[in-house]
Amino acid sequence: QILFDNYLENNKQKSKPHGLYAPIQYILSLGGKRLRPLLALMATEAFGNKPEDALPAALSVEVFHNFTLIHDDIMDQAPLRRGAPTVHNKWDENTGILSGDAMLIQAYQCLESYPNELFVKLINHTSKTALEVCEGQQYDMDFETQTNVSITDYLKMIEYKTAVLLGAALQIGGITAGASKQEQNYLYAFGRDLGIAFQLKDDLLDAFGDADAFGKQVGGDIMANKKTYLYLKSLALADGTQRQNLEQYFSTNDTSQVKVDAVKIIFSNLKIPELTTNLIREYHARAMENLAAIDSENKEPLLAFSALLMDRVS
Amino acid sequence: QILFDNYLENNKQKSKPHGLYAPIQYILSLGGKRLRPLLALMATEAFGNKPEDALPAALSVEVFHNFTLIHDDIMDQAPLRRGAPTVHNKWDENTGILSGDAMLIQAYQCLESYPNELFVKLINHTSKTALEVCEGQQYDMDFETQTNVSITDYLKMIEYKTAVLLGAALQIGGITAGASKQEQNYLYAFGRDLGIAFQLKDDLLDAFGDADAFGKQVGGDIMANKKTYLYLKSLALADGTQRQNLEQYFSTNDTSQVKVDAVKIIFSNLKIPELTTNLIREYHARAMENLAAIDSENKEPLLAFSALLMDRVS
Repeated sequence: QILFDNYLENNKQKSKPHGLYAPIQYILSLGGKRLRPLLALMATEAFGNKPEDALPAALSVEVFHNFTLIHDDIMDQAPLRRGAPTVHNKWDENTGILSGDAMLIQAYQCLESYPNELFVKLINHTSKTALEVCEGQQYDMDFETQTNVSITDYLKMIEYKTAVLLGAALQIGGITAGASKQEQNYLYAFGRDLGIAFQLKDDLLDAFGDADAFGKQVGGDIMANKKTYLYLKSLALADGTQRQNLEQYFSTNDTSQVKVDAVKIIFSNLKIPELTTNLIREYHARAMENLAAIDSENKEPLLAFSALLMDRVS
Repeated sequence: QILFDNYLENNKQKSKPHGLYAPIQYILSLGGKRLRPLLALMATEAFGNKPEDALPAALSVEVFHNFTLIHDDIMDQAPLRRGAPTVHNKWDENTGILSGDAMLIQAYQCLESYPNELFVKLINHTSKTALEVCEGQQYDMDFETQTNVSITDYLKMIEYKTAVLLGAALQIGGITAGASKQEQNYLYAFGRDLGIAFQLKDDLLDAFGDADAFGKQVGGDIMANKKTYLYLKSLALADGTQRQNLEQYFSTNDTSQVKVDAVKIIFSNLKIPELTTNLIREYHARAMENLAAIDSENKEPLLAFSALLMDRVS
């Protein structure tokens, strides 16, 4: 983490025009968990490489991730990010659009220091993943108005929107360490499955997390009528009355605690917390299988990190 | 042109999710002059290469250009593009943002068919140019509220926002033909200078073009108080009263024909049309010098094309 933060600090890019680059400095300085760069560094270390060698790739992934945050926050009209004003809120939407565009380009530029053969692999992987993340965001937006979202659709959406980038961060770390294609695939699958588990955990904590520990409003997804796994699974299991109630609650703009509590009671009656936990365990177990398949002496950091992600209460 | 349009037609990318890819098909199908891909194809032919070899690079430049159109149209709140509704107007802003992002990624992906060494050069050149285009757009937006814009600032802005991409299209064509670094530089400089001349001509036609031939509203820049070369040069030459009148007109939201006519009279009194034409000729002459320096037997198409661009009345 310190290694990465120092690299980030020392690799501040161009500063003029200020209106374009100040928002980029701003969002990168807000911190965040730095999950993706850390995964890239751990993956390269797992293959006996110095973490320093993966720093440009780790920065590329983090810059890309922050580009998606800026544009997603515009699309979601989110006022806050990591407890601070979002870019379009602090400046304006045009600034958010253009600075985000510049960051996407910079994510590619971060990779320019690698030798040709590595560079080509990293670029192609970045493009493929980047496009999938856009597709995931599109599916997420489509679901807002789509009435017949299946659980399969939902899992594909979170895979694209969130999980593939975790997989890509690991694979990119592996690529910089010269890991074989086979090992790269295990790394990617480990990250992807972990990412799906991570997002499902996020959905669960959003409704059933401890308000103090979670650090943000509990029930936000329910207030926003978000079609998460919890909601979709409930619909699949609900009897006539429960289904009617759920659909009724999710068709209003009501953001009251009364609605949140009522929906949570239906979720609980249908044992949704337990079922979600089971699904999280399932994806986590798949992630562990992929990790186990990796031929490396230095997998403990990845193992510890994934345990940390799974045990989190916030 | 036919060669390029066929390639575009046969290289339609993915189609799902529809909400992401339909707007991309839409904007690419609106046509336009296809200047940039044509320049790329002509540059590769100038170095004895088959134009087919430059098609992926030509498509990359055109996809990139259309990405900038989608995002610029959002930022400018433009309702129409090429006589048809803009993407954010036909769909919505979120669609415009996300489909634009996907196009920027696809511009990189277009280049994946090239062998590693070429690919690396093309990618690096694309990133450098792309970031400059973003910087140009930022300067353009900054100028809206900035009171002390110099002519040098303005020329730098149009160089970045418009001209570098014409230079890059030519250079990219040269790269795919294996042109030397020296020849690439001449190609780039030829395109850049031609691009600046092209944009100045655009500014001139916007105010003094023939309404029927120009095909869009004459005086649009004046109505929008746009600080073009015509305005900035006028300010530099104006006496006290003219200056006061100009600044007065450009500080109101008045979009009347009265204002347009009054400003045009001041422009004419200061011989701005002639001065602008002189500057256009100057940049055109520089472009011709760079073209002359290129060691190629097959420069006629580039010469004819640039003459066409300069003689245009629309």
